[in-house]
Amino acid sequence: MGESRAVHVTFEGEPPRRVAVRPGTTLLEAAHAAGVPVEATCGGRGRCRSCRVQIRKGPAPPPTLADRLQLGEDEIHERFRLACQAAAWEDLVVAVAPPREERAFQILTETRGTALEAVDPGVRKVLVRGFSGVREETAGARMEELLRQLPQPVGQVGVEAIRSGALLLRSPPEAVTAVLYEDRLLQVEAGDTTGELYGFAVDIGTTTVVGYLLDLREGELRATVAALNPQSSYGGDLMSRISFAQQDPGNVRRLHTRAIQCVNRLLEEACRIAGTSRDRIYKVVVVGNTIMHHLFLGVDPSSVGQAPYLPLVRTAVRVGAQEVGLRLPPHTPVLLLPLVAGFVGADAVGMVLATRIFESPRVRLAVDIGTNAEVVIGSRARIAACSAPAGPALEGAQIRWGMRAAQGAVDRVWIEAAVRYHVIGGGPPTGICGSGLVDAVAGLLEVGLLDPSGRLVVDPPPRVPEAVRRRITVLPDGQPAFVLVPKDESGVGEDIVVTQTDIRQVQLAKGAIRSGITVVERYLGLEDRDLAGVLLAGAFGNYLHLPSAIRIGLIPPLPQERIVYVGNAAGMGAQLVLLSEQEGRRAEELARRIEYVPLAAQPDFQEVFLRSVRFPE
Amino acid sequence: MGESRAVHVTFEGEPPRRVAVRPGTTLLEAAHAAGVPVEATCGGRGRCRSCRVQIRKGPAPPPTLADRLQLGEDEIHERFRLACQAAAWEDLVVAVAPPREERAFQILTETRGTALEAVDPGVRKVLVRGFSGVREETAGARMEELLRQLPQPVGQVGVEAIRSGALLLRSPPEAVTAVLYEDRLLQVEAGDTTGELYGFAVDIGTTTVVGYLLDLREGELRATVAALNPQSSYGGDLMSRISFAQQDPGNVRRLHTRAIQCVNRLLEEACRIAGTSRDRIYKVVVVGNTIMHHLFLGVDPSSVGQAPYLPLVRTAVRVGAQEVGLRLPPHTPVLLLPLVAGFVGADAVGMVLATRIFESPRVRLAVDIGTNAEVVIGSRARIAACSAPAGPALEGAQIRWGMRAAQGAVDRVWIEAAVRYHVIGGGPPTGICGSGLVDAVAGLLEVGLLDPSGRLVVDPPPRVPEAVRRRITVLPDGQPAFVLVPKDESGVGEDIVVTQTDIRQVQLAKGAIRSGITVVERYLGLEDRDLAGVLLAGAFGNYLHLPSAIRIGLIPPLPQERIVYVGNAAGMGAQLVLLSEQEGRRAEELARRIEYVPLAAQPDFQEVFLRSVRFPE
Repeated sequence: MGESRAVHVTFEGEPPRRVAVRPGTTLLEAAHAAGVPVEATCGGRGRCRSCRVQIRKGPAPPPTLADRLQLGEDEIHERFRLACQAAAWEDLVVAVAPPREERAFQILTETRGTALEAVDPGVRKVLVRGFSGVREETAGARMEELLRQLPQPVGQVGVEAIRSGALLLRSPPEAVTAVLYEDRLLQVEAGDTTGELYGFAVDIGTTTVVGYLLDLREGELRATVAALNPQSSYGGDLMSRISFAQQDPGNVRRLHTRAIQCVNRLLEEACRIAGTSRDRIYKVVVVGNTIMHHLFLGVDPSSVGQAPYLPLVRTAVRVGAQEVGLRLPPHTPVLLLPLVAGFVGADAVGMVLATRIFESPRVRLAVDIGTNAEVVIGSRARIAACSAPAGPALEGAQIRWGMRAAQGAVDRVWIEAAVRYHVIGGGPPTGICGSGLVDAVAGLLEVGLLDPSGRLVVDPPPRVPEAVRRRITVLPDGQPAFVLVPKDESGVGEDIVVTQTDIRQVQLAKGAIRSGITVVERYLGLEDRDLAGVLLAGAFGNYLHLPSAIRIGLIPPLPQERIVYVGNAAGMGAQLVLLSEQEGRRAEELARRIEYVPLAAQPDFQEVFLRSVRFPE
Repeated sequence: MGESRAVHVTFEGEPPRRVAVRPGTTLLEAAHAAGVPVEATCGGRGRCRSCRVQIRKGPAPPPTLADRLQLGEDEIHERFRLACQAAAWEDLVVAVAPPREERAFQILTETRGTALEAVDPGVRKVLVRGFSGVREETAGARMEELLRQLPQPVGQVGVEAIRSGALLLRSPPEAVTAVLYEDRLLQVEAGDTTGELYGFAVDIGTTTVVGYLLDLREGELRATVAALNPQSSYGGDLMSRISFAQQDPGNVRRLHTRAIQCVNRLLEEACRIAGTSRDRIYKVVVVGNTIMHHLFLGVDPSSVGQAPYLPLVRTAVRVGAQEVGLRLPPHTPVLLLPLVAGFVGADAVGMVLATRIFESPRVRLAVDIGTNAEVVIGSRARIAACSAPAGPALEGAQIRWGMRAAQGAVDRVWIEAAVRYHVIGGGPPTGICGSGLVDAVAGLLEVGLLDPSGRLVVDPPPRVPEAVRRRITVLPDGQPAFVLVPKDESGVGEDIVVTQTDIRQVQLAKGAIRSGITVVERYLGLEDRDLAGVLLAGAFGNYLHLPSAIRIGLIPPLPQERIVYVGNAAGMGAQLVLLSEQEGRRAEELARRIEYVPLAAQPDFQEVFLRSVRFPE
């Protein structure tokens, strides 16, 4: 009888669309029935992310394997699902292609369609058959036939290609596959492997390393893998890594080895997910900040930590996999994107490439918020960039109850008539992460418990709701604080508070980023109102609640629709270069074109910074 | 009183020149005193071979260390000395720049002076100073200064250069040295190392591996090192190596490893001799026959051993030292010369390059006599080549008393009124080497004990001297033989004989080479008389007694002055490419230009061969 019952799926939108379907119907089918356009690039096979939806109301269906592979645990936790995988067994309210993270892929799709005129990874495969027609029965004769069948003359034949040719062509094979990179024959593979042509893009962040396995034929993303950067055990932020590297020449090697081991593990994991092997990866592109870039290569980054903060090399670096220790065929080309300056690294170049701000006639701001925030402002006329030393407060570090955006973290806060909050994972809260902190500070400002100078108002005016004002307390150390989570709701047996010092940390962080934006604007002769848009990149940007970010003055007060999350833009830039040699050349041009604005060298920087530290009225 | 005595040094020539000098005067000083031009490229410091002389009469002075390093034991044994090192304590008769082996270096000198317009190895060093003037005190800032000081923009910066730059430029150095290869910055070295810029050329022969360490600044040869090819333990000739490789895929790796270990040892030895280190070697060039070429790369050569005897690759191969296992900085470029065909390998291309036959308006023949003899005939109009399967008889193998040209070997034989012979090392003979065998066969022909069909005349005519005719004997197995060394003179307690079978082996070997020459001549529409000269290359060519070689019909009967020994021409070709990128490009052109003549495919080959097997009347 359950069979005859209908369930209702409502798709959010203007207007919302509601459809009655049989229980078990996939959300993709439901969307089609409702006439809601949901893309399904892979044909509804769970092989891409294009049909991603978020369950707004009702029980989120249990995630499938495809959900886990394509979306990852964070998004699953945030009730994202692939519409082609999720079945409706209860009434649900669903949002199609929600902006968070998805925008990134829209931009990527856009660049693939427009700026990226063609998928042109430099690597290609050619199927060679017809060896039975070769009169002479030796590997050498068949190798000649193979070279003859290639669409263009081979300039160089690689050792691996010669070795494998000698083995595979001993008896006449049905078919072999030639792998070419530029005019070089890289490899000869048994049988028809033209269906397996992969590349790996890696974004090595200070905290997180993310890898993307792409099919180089059509540019499809086949796996996204991530791990914490294991260098963290030698220091959480860049400066502590640099100082560890300085202590002992062996430490550079240790940091290098950690990074490489991590990438090797990600390679392996990505191959497992995509159902392929490391031998089928023919190109690797790496982005990262300058320190991560240098450590990946095994280069002592000490110099980058001292004025004038210059990297050892700025041009794109190309190495063979073997030279850096990647467990791939020795010759596999590994390309590191170029750098602009010590703190405007390959990741910033990747961000510029992915956001296409260099193509637009209108000026846009792109910010990757992290311990060092990269700030880029520009258009096709000019691009300038700086690095703003925000410190780790927005990542939850050096905050009394700060923590990463993980299970138990308060990630959203509303301070209105009452105080409400959202906890990642849904259990009792154990701390507060950056986005929650920004929300809390914005709420305190709005409700009148925080003045623009950043001082908690211990004796608030009567207009502050009673339920909120009574949360102001004074800690044993004498500093005021705001009780975000009272002891009885807390998972740690204590009040979870936001202290005056925490607020100062947030102020310093946002002051650094905001002053970076202002300095670059001034350098280009611009003001906030000249910005046609703001692109927020990086993991933190994705969690941030925009109105709060604007309320505290972290980003310029643009209408919300002109501010977009662009996801991991650095990683997208790496993917673009993976897919297109032309994008690689473009990255080199960009790195030369981007004007670096050293903050400390601006005569009025201190003044700008002090002004930026204040919260907007 | 000895001091006042004069000694006389006579320099051979037309006319001979005689000079009286004080005992202990060097032969170089004596030559200058006599007005005999002796070149001393290195300024008489024992650092080159240009002043080499041979002591024709009188006691050869004890060899110095420089003699051993520059000349090697074989030449010392043959009474060659460096004129700048050898002192005259007794009356001596001396020949300046004797043709044996020296011609090779004359050609090399000539090419350096003419065809090799300039030493242009691709690798160069630039001294960078003036870091104290760099305002900012970091490695990054100094690296920028370094790049700024280079004479041309750097396209790629290698990992090793970045790593070493980061270390060396931490504090302002007095000077560093940048190493460039093409437009790539390979390395940054501490201090001024511009005086140390070396390259290594290697000729990997089936039997012997020879290495040459060259100073890439001026092209000076700084060390010659040689070793027996340790692959020999897996088979003495090419075919047995191929069949060993075929038995088991692991065997290819074994043969590869042996070759690489051998080259690594030679590298070390050469560095020791030249007083440098492996880190100062920036380019390696390798020649060898196709089998050695493939095994050096770790490529299964089986295919080369079967018709149509094609190599797996013919174009020049460039690898990094690390990829093949050479113990040099990982990026060090290793270049293998291109191949023409399965049995006309990189060594033949090297020979063509070194002998410059491609430049001459007149047609010349170049032959490298070995188990497989490479035969090249040509001029600047056309060049054709074949490989003649001579077998190992001329190297003393498969000959009853055959041995290598080593201590105890009869290397020269005169059969006239009596039988005389020369023994390497001067002791009692223990066997006969190839050159002795050719002499013996020539002598037997001349004296009438051998008929043109190759049959030993058991009942010789009376005109044969008694002392010679009584040496004809019949062995227990029934075959006739010639007693070269009677039991009582022999070091082995038995007669050392040349058997009828031995003579047949020599006949087959010379028949193969001679028919190869004839076939290539015919292919080009030429006859012997069209040859303007014959260039004999390779170790065996150097030992061969020319009149004997002509007498048995091994080489065309040209006037002796038109036949020259050119030494290890393949190795010289490798040296040319080491010294000049242009020569490298020329080698590629040549490999494409040289027309390969497959002997077996010639319709009249059997007939030519059978005619060539006969000895000239």
